[in-house]
Amino acid sequence: MAEVFRTSRRIEFADTDAAGIAHFSTYFRLMEEAEHEFLRSVGLSVLLRDDEGAISFPRVRAECDYRAALRFEDVAEIDVRVLKLGRTSIGYEFAFSRGGEPIAHGQIVCVCCRVSNDGPPQAIAIPEWIAEKLRPFVAA
Amino acid sequence: MAEVFRTSRRIEFADTDAAGIAHFSTYFRLMEEAEHEFLRSVGLSVLLRDDEGAISFPRVRAECDYRAALRFEDVAEIDVRVLKLGRTSIGYEFAFSRGGEPIAHGQIVCVCCRVSNDGPPQAIAIPEWIAEKLRPFVAA
Amino acid sequence: MAEVFRTSRRIEFADTDAAGIAHFSTYFRLMEEAEHEFLRSVGLSVLLRDDEGAISFPRVRAECDYRAALRFEDVAEIDVRVLKLGRTSIGYEFAFSRGGEPIAHGQIVCVCCRVSNDGPPQAIAIPEWIAEKLRPFVAA
Amino acid sequence: MAEVFRTSRRIEFADTDAAGIAHFSTYFRLMEEAEHEFLRSVGLSVLLRDDEGAISFPRVRAECDYRAALRFEDVAEIDVRVLKLGRTSIGYEFAFSRGGEPIAHGQIVCVCCRVSNDGPPQAIAIPEWIAEKLRPFVAA
Repeated sequence: MAEVFRTSRRIEFADTDAAGIAHFSTYFRLMEEAEHEFLRSVGLSVLLRDDEGAISFPRVRAECDYRAALRFEDVAEIDVRVLKLGRTSIGYEFAFSRGGEPIAHGQIVCVCCRVSNDGPPQAIAIPEWIAEKLRPFVAA
Repeated sequence: MAEVFRTSRRIEFADTDAAGIAHFSTYFRLMEEAEHEFLRSVGLSVLLRDDEGAISFPRVRAECDYRAALRFEDVAEIDVRVLKLGRTSIGYEFAFSRGGEPIAHGQIVCVCCRVSNDGPPQAIAIPEWIAEKLRPFVAA
Repeated sequence: MAEVFRTSRRIEFADTDAAGIAHFSTYFRLMEEAEHEFLRSVGLSVLLRDDEGAISFPRVRAECDYRAALRFEDVAEIDVRVLKLGRTSIGYEFAFSRGGEPIAHGQIVCVCCRVSNDGPPQAIAIPEWIAEKLRPFVAA
Repeated sequence: MAEVFRTSRRIEFADTDAAGIAHFSTYFRLMEEAEHEFLRSVGLSVLLRDDEGAISFPRVRAECDYRAALRFEDVAEIDVRVLKLGRTSIGYEFAFSRGGEPIAHGQIVCVCCRVSNDGPPQAIAIPEWIAEKLRPFVAA
């Protein structure tokens, strides 16, 4: 059984729009916040260093399906799973709910990259010391 | 041949992140800005009224694939097409490029709804006076 | 001695900019988040209702002085005080620090207003059931 | 007579909040956008280089007074003036209006700094090749 990382976020006033609900772009910020909090919970970060320099995880895809709306001061639970742990890429799944009611469902795919100031990020195989922290959360 | 609506947006400093590039959530705001500018260009808006009240277009899905990065002060061209004009839903496609180089590619699906202060939005068939403005942009 | 409401916020990746630090506009969002959390802590909200309708607190002034920078994943403590409790207006003060080091110092002034869909907000005297909750936090 | 740089910005849906108006933090993003557009108009940028490295302009103070509200799709005119051109600091003034009606009035103070990856920004005297571009806009 895969583990699930659960966190929550309150919808702030600046997250809402003139339709009175959380703007659809807010969910992408919250998905990334949940991802980063998950990484911290297993001793990682979205910005890491090893002997060869800096490692980061640029996003190559993001998506979200919306079923219901969140309003100001609502608290959303966010369940984070690892959908896919590839050789170079990680696929995260995020399930938003409010008191058990499904609200939205999203995914982010990112690629493990060597990053420097001297050019674009270069994809690398995910180092084993990173992969071993993510493996318990990989959905079957 | 379907028409394409082209606009452009400059990446502002607040759109960037500590990786030195436009944050991935920025593209969703820019897609919506391009959608709304397209609607204005054909005499519509995302908030409309007819004899029966207010009509709006809540988002049910949004997605983006990222191929390259945009940086501070870059100007991105954004091409807007109507991928699908359904009975109640509209699917938009957004192609971001910079000087001809593809940068990102996204979609937003929204549903034509009767909106009021007395409950959640109710999906309705897209009125013909709206559909006729969108039809020239429907991709074959 | 006036009471102080203390909360904290973590700087998220979307809050940062290409200079590698929290964007200066982020502090205004965080000040408002701290204000609203303070209001909840004393049983209030920025959106209230009484027998006559809705009451809210539109901002008439906001300012911030920056002494040092916050970076990704930094946790800032935010101390909230009520600088002024006037007949119709409230002045909040926000002190940002990180591990005791002063980071920034801001103020927001808002006005107690009757709000409706039928026109602009109308300033009203702050009802006593609201003022009594704020009074312990008024700085001497 | 000092010159004034005028630009304009449309309020986008993501800029609005559940009160149906542009969120108060939006004005700070728009002030910075206007500042950067002004700098480009005189051949400068907020990120510059000379023989000794990179120069930038961290903000040390920002403020805004709000007189009226902007709504979705409103177009605001923004007049930019240089209130103060000091030895190391620049004070900008921003006047927001809509069809001649004053909406908001803000200021940003920034400091000319040598920036590098090796420590915090260091204030420097504003180089003459920068100051001479700003001088015509200094308010009497």
